[in-house]
Amino acid sequence: MRIVLDAMGSDQHPQPEIEAAIELTREFGPELILVGDQPRLQEVIGNRAPGLEIVHAPEIFGMEEHISTHGALRRAQNSMGVGIDLVKDGKADAFVSAGNTGGVMGVALARLGRLSGLKRPALSVLFPVQGGRCVALDIGANAECKPEYLLQFGLMGSVYAEKALGVQNPRVGLLSNGEEEGKGNELVRNTFPLLAASGLNFVGNVEGKEVFGGKVDVVVTDGFTGNVLMKGSEAVAKLITDRLREELMASWRTKLGALLARPAFAELRKDLDPREVGAAPLLGLNGLVFVAHGRSDARALVSAVKLARHSVEVGLLDYLRAAIEKKGLLSFLRR
Amino acid sequence: MRIVLDAMGSDQHPQPEIEAAIELTREFGPELILVGDQPRLQEVIGNRAPGLEIVHAPEIFGMEEHISTHGALRRAQNSMGVGIDLVKDGKADAFVSAGNTGGVMGVALARLGRLSGLKRPALSVLFPVQGGRCVALDIGANAECKPEYLLQFGLMGSVYAEKALGVQNPRVGLLSNGEEEGKGNELVRNTFPLLAASGLNFVGNVEGKEVFGGKVDVVVTDGFTGNVLMKGSEAVAKLITDRLREELMASWRTKLGALLARPAFAELRKDLDPREVGAAPLLGLNGLVFVAHGRSDARALVSAVKLARHSVEVGLLDYLRAAIEKKGLLSFLRR
Repeated sequence: MRIVLDAMGSDQHPQPEIEAAIELTREFGPELILVGDQPRLQEVIGNRAPGLEIVHAPEIFGMEEHISTHGALRRAQNSMGVGIDLVKDGKADAFVSAGNTGGVMGVALARLGRLSGLKRPALSVLFPVQGGRCVALDIGANAECKPEYLLQFGLMGSVYAEKALGVQNPRVGLLSNGEEEGKGNELVRNTFPLLAASGLNFVGNVEGKEVFGGKVDVVVTDGFTGNVLMKGSEAVAKLITDRLREELMASWRTKLGALLARPAFAELRKDLDPREVGAAPLLGLNGLVFVAHGRSDARALVSAVKLARHSVEVGLLDYLRAAIEKKGLLSFLRR
Repeated sequence: MRIVLDAMGSDQHPQPEIEAAIELTREFGPELILVGDQPRLQEVIGNRAPGLEIVHAPEIFGMEEHISTHGALRRAQNSMGVGIDLVKDGKADAFVSAGNTGGVMGVALARLGRLSGLKRPALSVLFPVQGGRCVALDIGANAECKPEYLLQFGLMGSVYAEKALGVQNPRVGLLSNGEEEGKGNELVRNTFPLLAASGLNFVGNVEGKEVFGGKVDVVVTDGFTGNVLMKGSEAVAKLITDRLREELMASWRTKLGALLARPAFAELRKDLDPREVGAAPLLGLNGLVFVAHGRSDARALVSAVKLARHSVEVGLLDYLRAAIEKKGLLSFLRR
């Protein structure tokens, strides 16, 4: 197995990527391929990661750049393009980057293409929820969606939850403004019967309390609503933790309390920390591509690569392909 | 001034309503009208609220009922209908209920009608945000919207923030999946130029971090997305506080810490508590109607009625009417 790690992706690149690469190469041997500024990477790494392959990419796709400015998506020699080409050419099994999500999606879509029969690829995220995690998709690739796209998001999210995350018979919910069938905007109302007839473990419409209360393993939505919900929930979590920190610093009594309660805050932080999971897949491409948070540190990147490794091991891509191409999801899954 | 309070609205009705009515009548004299099961209310209140008028309504609009089951919206003699008719008939200046939001909207729309020139009335909510509150609308009345609806939501939200909440020159944002102009779904992209040309203090597209970070005073969105965001943010807040409580109870050390830190938690709870504000208006009707949370206690209902009183005092309805009818919002506001 070979996994490609974009060395120029994270906000602090390439330091976290280098540390992750050293650790992963020590643990798994010569499996990892690092892509980026080869001479610089080689110099920093020295002989600390025997067997680590470093592939040169002369350019970087910046965090603030738009794919629209990279007209030559198919040719650009940035670390994303070079890394994804390794997957496309069969030289690697998966690509992991902590770079610009829109950039990774654009480059990966241009170079790998979609699964046969797929309408639109989706961005996913794992929400921390009561008792675990919930796969949410689409969270930003497609601002306008049709019911058939959402059906495919449900199929792919379910396959991902079952095969890569080990959830038995994942519960799939459709994000709506009310639980009852018939609630929702036109898109939701037209998607409901497709999901109900899909053979998936579809539990119906869900709202925030079901999603964050841990009542579903997969939540399906359009990329606009999913993006608003994801960013909104991150912002609410930040508001609460910021305000709590301010209030805890308000007196000696509460400061002492905060000191004693520190293990509880640490557990909570771990719960909410995206680094615990590491990355989320782009679903629907002809290849496995994972995007980690821009703020990823070495530990987060190690988790991300391990998630990619595991996804390769379980044959995630074949299951996704079968779910979309054959539409015989359940019979395929139960083989 | 006369304010009508629905005695049969809250989850615990009529006890919180009775307590609130007694307190408000003591503070403001014979201003309040309580609507509900008159004999029962009179018996419980006795002579504790001299001057309080109690108007009889033989029916209740239940929390779980749908307006679709109340075909006779214009005639039904439930406490909402009777109370709203008092406003319609000029016998009262505003109506406050902690009942079923969809029910209040349905009954109020059927009996009061819309402001002349208004496309769609909106449900609003006040989000707790960094440094204060943010008016969000629509949060559920209209799952499908057109750009002109959102423009009117912006006008009404701005008038409400300025006149009722005392915000100078309210900053209005358009909820989107990215800040840049051109981001968004079709509805957002088509609404952007309308808001930009409206004369409002339009700051452009906003995401969760601007909303909950306190960068805008009004956030405009369609009722589907607004509802998802509102319920999602409530659920995230609950997840975090539930998880923190669990972790704080995990050891003697953290329990002691929690005890010492209690004042900080109390402040945070106050911050996030919808009862501090009490209610949110239905905007766009021919009359002032406020909906409080079903879980409201007497204190929340007192806040709700005070918000309604203040809105009457400042002439909110005339400002809303002018903003919609005359479209000369800014010149009117600056009179």
